[in-house]
Amino acid sequence: WHNAALLYGDAERPAETGARAAPGAAEQRPACACSQKPCGCQKADVNYAFLHSTDLLPACNGEITTMSFLQDVVDILLQYVVRSFDRSTKVIDFHYPNELLQEYNWELADQPQTLEEILLNCRTTLKYAIKTGHPRYFNQLSTGLDMVGLAADWLTSAANTNMFTYEIAPVFVLLEYVTLRKMREMVGWPGGCGDGIFSPGGAISNMYAMLIARFKMFPEVKEKGMAAIPRLVAFTSEHSHFSVKKGAAALGIGTDSVILIRCDERGKMIPSDLERRILEAKQKGFVPFLVSATAGTTVYGAFDPLIAIADICKKYKIWMHVDGAWGGGLLMSRKHKWKLNGVERANSVTWNPHKMMGVPLQCSALLVREEGLMQSCNQMHASYLFQQDKHYDLSYDTGDKALQCGRHVDVFKLWLMWRAKGTTGFEAQIDKCLELAEYLYNKIKNRDGYEMVFDGKPQHTNVCFWYIPPSLRSMEDNEERMSRLMKVAPVIKARMMEYGTTMVSYQPLGDKVNFFRMVISNPAATHQDIDFLIDEIERLGQDL
Amino acid sequence: WHNAALLYGDAERPAETGARAAPGAAEQRPACACSQKPCGCQKADVNYAFLHSTDLLPACNGEITTMSFLQDVVDILLQYVVRSFDRSTKVIDFHYPNELLQEYNWELADQPQTLEEILLNCRTTLKYAIKTGHPRYFNQLSTGLDMVGLAADWLTSAANTNMFTYEIAPVFVLLEYVTLRKMREMVGWPGGCGDGIFSPGGAISNMYAMLIARFKMFPEVKEKGMAAIPRLVAFTSEHSHFSVKKGAAALGIGTDSVILIRCDERGKMIPSDLERRILEAKQKGFVPFLVSATAGTTVYGAFDPLIAIADICKKYKIWMHVDGAWGGGLLMSRKHKWKLNGVERANSVTWNPHKMMGVPLQCSALLVREEGLMQSCNQMHASYLFQQDKHYDLSYDTGDKALQCGRHVDVFKLWLMWRAKGTTGFEAQIDKCLELAEYLYNKIKNRDGYEMVFDGKPQHTNVCFWYIPPSLRSMEDNEERMSRLMKVAPVIKARMMEYGTTMVSYQPLGDKVNFFRMVISNPAATHQDIDFLIDEIERLGQDL
Repeated sequence: WHNAALLYGDAERPAETGARAAPGAAEQRPACACSQKPCGCQKADVNYAFLHSTDLLPACNGEITTMSFLQDVVDILLQYVVRSFDRSTKVIDFHYPNELLQEYNWELADQPQTLEEILLNCRTTLKYAIKTGHPRYFNQLSTGLDMVGLAADWLTSAANTNMFTYEIAPVFVLLEYVTLRKMREMVGWPGGCGDGIFSPGGAISNMYAMLIARFKMFPEVKEKGMAAIPRLVAFTSEHSHFSVKKGAAALGIGTDSVILIRCDERGKMIPSDLERRILEAKQKGFVPFLVSATAGTTVYGAFDPLIAIADICKKYKIWMHVDGAWGGGLLMSRKHKWKLNGVERANSVTWNPHKMMGVPLQCSALLVREEGLMQSCNQMHASYLFQQDKHYDLSYDTGDKALQCGRHVDVFKLWLMWRAKGTTGFEAQIDKCLELAEYLYNKIKNRDGYEMVFDGKPQHTNVCFWYIPPSLRSMEDNEERMSRLMKVAPVIKARMMEYGTTMVSYQPLGDKVNFFRMVISNPAATHQDIDFLIDEIERLGQDL
Repeated sequence: WHNAALLYGDAERPAETGARAAPGAAEQRPACACSQKPCGCQKADVNYAFLHSTDLLPACNGEITTMSFLQDVVDILLQYVVRSFDRSTKVIDFHYPNELLQEYNWELADQPQTLEEILLNCRTTLKYAIKTGHPRYFNQLSTGLDMVGLAADWLTSAANTNMFTYEIAPVFVLLEYVTLRKMREMVGWPGGCGDGIFSPGGAISNMYAMLIARFKMFPEVKEKGMAAIPRLVAFTSEHSHFSVKKGAAALGIGTDSVILIRCDERGKMIPSDLERRILEAKQKGFVPFLVSATAGTTVYGAFDPLIAIADICKKYKIWMHVDGAWGGGLLMSRKHKWKLNGVERANSVTWNPHKMMGVPLQCSALLVREEGLMQSCNQMHASYLFQQDKHYDLSYDTGDKALQCGRHVDVFKLWLMWRAKGTTGFEAQIDKCLELAEYLYNKIKNRDGYEMVFDGKPQHTNVCFWYIPPSLRSMEDNEERMSRLMKVAPVIKARMMEYGTTMVSYQPLGDKVNFFRMVISNPAATHQDIDFLIDEIERLGQDL
């Protein structure tokens, strides 16, 4: 049966499936007598060494070859998927860039390769890939590999369309409508009212928020540019994501006009400092137009105090954006959603289902409370796309809301996963990840050789800590210790990658030298994987 | 054999594959005796009606269910793929938005659905999808469904990673490097030198060009914003893509600062008008910083005279961008690449392989001649991602070049298709599409009932024409005729969609009322499909 191929690379495949016919046999053989057209009866005879992409559909009689080829690709992928969840496999087979460039010929040529070579390219690419679904891959906020999400992404690829009009993406446009409304309900906007879009990532979603906030206050900026309006300033915490500054640079506002508000020791924005800086900016004649609060900071996983921030935004009539790219997922959990209390008062919210909800990359939503604003802000009325004399309800041609013209279908994988899990399924998955983070925190908070970067139970799944090798444990807390400690995490991380056993991120932050930032968003992870991580850090770091 | 499932929806599937076991059987059954672990021997027994996504990996013993489920999804997709190329199937099974909303329950709920329902969701989604790979789908610049591209996109989904660092996307980062260098070679930059990125679509690529051009002239804009620099103006033709204006609005430059240069009757920018408008702007004290020339306009498929434009840009020291989103593919053709002569003098080039080269959506490249500029313009040095003390060559951490933080892997499908076709394969495919466009042009230019929107052989695959129904053929060319002609294309298009037989776009442009814009980018299309389109237009339009 065909799944035998799952367990073997082509080279190792049992002989019975390897029977191969003469060159070009797929074309020359007389038509099969079976009643199915196209039929796949003769798959075993397809000899890829003599076939090229021109033998695939739309080639005449290309069905057999196409189905065999795609099936063999899928077999390679299923093998990879199964191995991704297998703890006995490496997370990564690490090679330095120059090694990887030399180990295989990746170059593009004038002449075609055979389908046999194409299958080899696929296997080689996966050989060196990071298994981001591996239960011991903790390196990024987006981890895991959801099977329904994967299926949905495969369907999206086969449908190969574009979000700009209902005309060419009827189902996906409706699903975007349904899904965004549901997400707005979860945010707490009455009846899910409002607007939104799926954008290519949280940075772009945050940039959209800034763009729309500016337009709301000064609609003339669209035509006249920044020259026609006062100098704007935006506020965000010192722990916020760099995309707020990146957006300000792009939008012509400038990074100097992003004022970083101080955080408490847990990484939460201090509202009194926000108000002070707003007043200061106003005194200088600047116009505060946006506060970007963070619900789940990148490193600490901190939630800014949204209610206090909402009060200040209301008082000074400033657009309140909540960057919930990382923390938004907690809205699915009855146990944890209080951490976002106040989000319902935001004017806009970024929420990336590709992070805490485990949706395949990428899937980021920007939600906007006021309907129609995105459209007014971004529309250019291209008459070749958004014809006004079409025969259906034009409100479903949502493409002109976007900065993009063509837009990838990102909604289907989220929608299908939501159908498959229900809200309660996402909740269970998220609660489990938070429980694991608490387990890790409890395990190391008093353990020899560990120091927590901040006190207290994590609010999200971020657990930030230093591993202190034995040689540093009795040292005084001075500069030498700091400079040695700074080098510990990078060395352990490099060793993790070379062994390929696990991956976790590290970084410095402010005056704190390199520390590990553990995050858990993969429902495949278990207590044993957390135990493994700690053992591995100690194994790899004890000699430092 | 499993491919039997290809030809049948679940309901119609022959009885022998439909044998189903008791609830939860997949878990309760004793382990199979075969030597393969995990094995798929018992696939036929999986009863999806009693299984949920929680039974899939990473569930304990989830392999059998996972492989069966993904295999069944793939069977549904393969069926869709084969049908996409079958001319006896509809391009679209059109339903109005309110019908589609009522015909199926698309809502998201608290409770999970079974895997049986998930498979049904997949089938239903595809039932209402547009077959963008159908040989008679001519509606957009991106059409077709490439089998190697599809395979590559499936692999990309399974790898589920992010382009920001080499650490988590080693192969894909290298392939981006190799592929962008090759594209720059095709543009004509010596040795493929320069820089670039894959971005989420041509509009964003064009916005990048504008962003980088502004930064090159006034690097202080990154920190200080537009307030600190003189009033900028950009130039592009009146036939250029709306994304130039959209970008200017977003970047705080303002749409009024995008000066539209007149075109000749073929839709090409008139260089003397460009120079005149540059001088005029300078006289007003504005600073010209960008000319965006178009290589393949959206509607006419016109190529701006790049050499003359390059001369003007050089003379006035203005950044020359070429928007080759649509026309860039012609660089792969020895016969047609002369149309882009002068592109090698551009400072930046947008080129969307997802259009003329048939790569699945989305795949858009921005190429920049000066290396390092993208990085300086966009980098924010986020220390949690771009640690400076990593153990490998940091020049491969390319993520800080981008406006995005997370970035989808768009390169693999292009790379794999290029390996499979070779440059010569892309050339053959593109030459064929252009030949088909010429065939269409020759067929209708003197045919009763057709008027060409502009004279002469198309330069790209765009063929723009009016169909004149018999009732209008003897009318004088007056306002009444115009107002009746305006309604012809929309009605024919609506009928096409309701019959589902073919799709082609129409639009007004300037003083020209609605005309058809035929484009061909699908290598599946043949002369017979062109003949069919013409017959269909006449069949659906003769009574108007």
